[in-house]
Amino acid sequence: MAAAKIGTPGSGRRAYNPAMTQALPAALAAELAALLGPDGWLTGEPLRRAHGEDDSRMSALPDAVALPRDCDQVAALVRACRRHRVPVVARGAGTGTTGAAVPFAGGVVVSFARMDAILEVRPGDRCAVVEPGVRNGDLQQALQPHGLFWPPDPTSFERCTIGGNLACNAGGPRAVKYGASRDNVLGLVAVTGTGDIVRCGGPWTKDATGYDLTHLLVGSEGTLALIVEATLRLVPRPLAQAGLRAFYRDAAAAAAAVSRLMRQPQVPAMLEFMDASALALLRRNGSDVPEAGAMLLVEADGDHDTLPLALQALADAAEGDGLLALDVAADGAARDRLWAARRALSPALRTIAPGKINEDVVVPVSRIPELVAGVEALAAESALPIVVFGHAGNGNLHVNILYHPDDGDESARAGAVLPRVFGLVLALGGTLSGEHGIGVAKRDWMDRAFDAPTLAAMRAVKAALDPDGILNPGKVLPP
Amino acid sequence: MAAAKIGTPGSGRRAYNPAMTQALPAALAAELAALLGPDGWLTGEPLRRAHGEDDSRMSALPDAVALPRDCDQVAALVRACRRHRVPVVARGAGTGTTGAAVPFAGGVVVSFARMDAILEVRPGDRCAVVEPGVRNGDLQQALQPHGLFWPPDPTSFERCTIGGNLACNAGGPRAVKYGASRDNVLGLVAVTGTGDIVRCGGPWTKDATGYDLTHLLVGSEGTLALIVEATLRLVPRPLAQAGLRAFYRDAAAAAAAVSRLMRQPQVPAMLEFMDASALALLRRNGSDVPEAGAMLLVEADGDHDTLPLALQALADAAEGDGLLALDVAADGAARDRLWAARRALSPALRTIAPGKINEDVVVPVSRIPELVAGVEALAAESALPIVVFGHAGNGNLHVNILYHPDDGDESARAGAVLPRVFGLVLALGGTLSGEHGIGVAKRDWMDRAFDAPTLAAMRAVKAALDPDGILNPGKVLPP
Repeated sequence: MAAAKIGTPGSGRRAYNPAMTQALPAALAAELAALLGPDGWLTGEPLRRAHGEDDSRMSALPDAVALPRDCDQVAALVRACRRHRVPVVARGAGTGTTGAAVPFAGGVVVSFARMDAILEVRPGDRCAVVEPGVRNGDLQQALQPHGLFWPPDPTSFERCTIGGNLACNAGGPRAVKYGASRDNVLGLVAVTGTGDIVRCGGPWTKDATGYDLTHLLVGSEGTLALIVEATLRLVPRPLAQAGLRAFYRDAAAAAAAVSRLMRQPQVPAMLEFMDASALALLRRNGSDVPEAGAMLLVEADGDHDTLPLALQALADAAEGDGLLALDVAADGAARDRLWAARRALSPALRTIAPGKINEDVVVPVSRIPELVAGVEALAAESALPIVVFGHAGNGNLHVNILYHPDDGDESARAGAVLPRVFGLVLALGGTLSGEHGIGVAKRDWMDRAFDAPTLAAMRAVKAALDPDGILNPGKVLPP
Repeated sequence: MAAAKIGTPGSGRRAYNPAMTQALPAALAAELAALLGPDGWLTGEPLRRAHGEDDSRMSALPDAVALPRDCDQVAALVRACRRHRVPVVARGAGTGTTGAAVPFAGGVVVSFARMDAILEVRPGDRCAVVEPGVRNGDLQQALQPHGLFWPPDPTSFERCTIGGNLACNAGGPRAVKYGASRDNVLGLVAVTGTGDIVRCGGPWTKDATGYDLTHLLVGSEGTLALIVEATLRLVPRPLAQAGLRAFYRDAAAAAAAVSRLMRQPQVPAMLEFMDASALALLRRNGSDVPEAGAMLLVEADGDHDTLPLALQALADAAEGDGLLALDVAADGAARDRLWAARRALSPALRTIAPGKINEDVVVPVSRIPELVAGVEALAAESALPIVVFGHAGNGNLHVNILYHPDDGDESARAGAVLPRVFGLVLALGGTLSGEHGIGVAKRDWMDRAFDAPTLAAMRAVKAALDPDGILNPGKVLPP
């Protein structure tokens, strides 16, 4: 089988090889075509092409696309591919940013577009059982009448799927109070690299029975198993939200406020940070943002009685040395105005430069000031705008390096500064990703983030569940 | 090396073999004696005996006891034992109830009694870094000045160690709001069965970087790795607590109330259940408990402003069909009176019969009524008192089978009813353990709780991290 390495990791460009042809062994192709039926087995180039890219701007052409209808079809497919040592790459909606769903080694992309049923909502047990192809936003809609929600809220929630959320351990701003995907899954059914169906966890919230395969599979990006069903932990939906916006002299003062906010018992429902360059950008684009070194957006949730108290506790914690201004939004409309600045940021970034490398690094909350100062220094040295914002309560910040991809010199400088960002993060005792995952984009940094014995243990776990290395080869672990 | 199978799993009796002698290969014994020094290498029988039992009433004599001082000594010890294929059994305070720490296959017991330092409390990052030998209660004391706590609160908190809590994924009543051990660990340093030191996770609360070894190792009962350092998630300590006590017509009415309580946004800080037989027992022992089919103890926490609102929300949710009486304890003294009944229960159990088999099964919250009804039927059939109480919000109930160990017929009936309890739990879609773990006590039920492919995946993970099977052999997974 010919490997379909078209867009190489890190190339930052879409690239197709139109000459690429199906290269699956004929016996395998025939077996899978019979297994999946004409609607479930796609070999035309346009459809293969559409299933070979994600939001990383990388792409590769799979040899075929499978759309299984159920767990047994997935298991049969994996067993067949294993016999022929053909790669199997699971795919949700392709909203990932790390190339995790891009089939660089060719093989069969498994789309869960036809496994998109909400199998069960069990409000009495506060859980839902879903297939992986359910869209995050559709699930939230279905849960609304029950007064429940599933906490992970990535920006792509309208398009991204639960399977993709689980594969990448997706988060979002609500994770500061309610956790990311891994914290909100109770059980999984998954197909390992041997084609075996494992069933772990279930509709309960406390479990000391055997090894925790559930949390291990979450965030493994389809390299250990394909998730075919998930039992999700649901949370009662708060009745009301309110927010506040605090401006600080500098990132250090804002980070100190983050620590204060996280140390008091009223856990914020969101706690977002923007650095000085983000604020300057918003001002240039007409947002009503004062001159300041940093901003925090803090949200409280609760019911109509408790919300004012929660908001007061958060406002008290936000106060402190270096606070320049504090706006309180006690109701929904005022809150929408405060959050408008946050929503305006991503479009504003595009006004600076069309190219953006967005890395979702994590540092201990106490090290946020050093991260911001270090990034400022790197921006000055590299003569590139770098904007830092994100989920401060988790120390999970998005470092956005902006550049013009058509400017070879800028592209080179952007490429050169990225490893220095990772180096800074690791030197501060942080880690590579909080919610985007590794894919191929950060894979070659894994041996800086983990020592050799830890990577060896990860490789051993990979070999245990996928002995022939057919599941999403080349992702997460460096070669 | 002679295996030291003295108290066999399930025997329910303490048993020593005084003729047991050290059977370690001389070269290994010499190497470990030199590595650990005279204070760290114990071979006298009384000390070996003291390190060979736990609260399961089972025991076995290890060949030696090691008390390492640091991670490197643990790694060197495991490497040496691996060369000789000698079992290594990690040990905390021996408060486990499943025989997980009992060295049935002999070998070296590794006590973490000398690795008991709180290495760091990082209030700004809401985490603490500890060695495994720290006692849970000592950690809570050390955290008090910081206004923080570590959520797991097993009954044995004054004696049990963090390492043991993590090994067994210990919980307690607070888990309903704050999670069990696995939910409250951010990072680990651990020594695998190859003697390699793995470092996973760290002082952050969001992580999508590589495989989640951290949560995998928690609850693995020393069979995958020995935890030598843990970074624990801390939670701001609520300023005040209040509670309420609700009596219901029957378990079904109480379970419906549990579902209502768990579906509204004011998550209870504790939510404990007692069945009719527990209440009858308390009445017989003089507690002020009315005639009722079931009782819930519900706790709210918060600050002085929010607490009354939280309590009201919980009282509202507790109301419903079948509620017989509701007592509110708005302050600490009243709350102590309410909880006195819960505290009186364990001593009261001993007044029925000296023998107690306590299983901490888990069922979906919605199935609690069927569990209670099924256990009542089993109690009637077996003519044994069976008392059900525990952590209803998690569906984690303690089923206590009471019998006279010296009465052969009662012992036989108790032994016979236990598998029927597990069978009932599994038929209700539940699982074997919520917070005690598997050890050997429930090991032979694992192949009923998991299907063959899932157990095979667990065995593959075990082989990946402990290829020679030297870590706590015979535990968790059935032979």
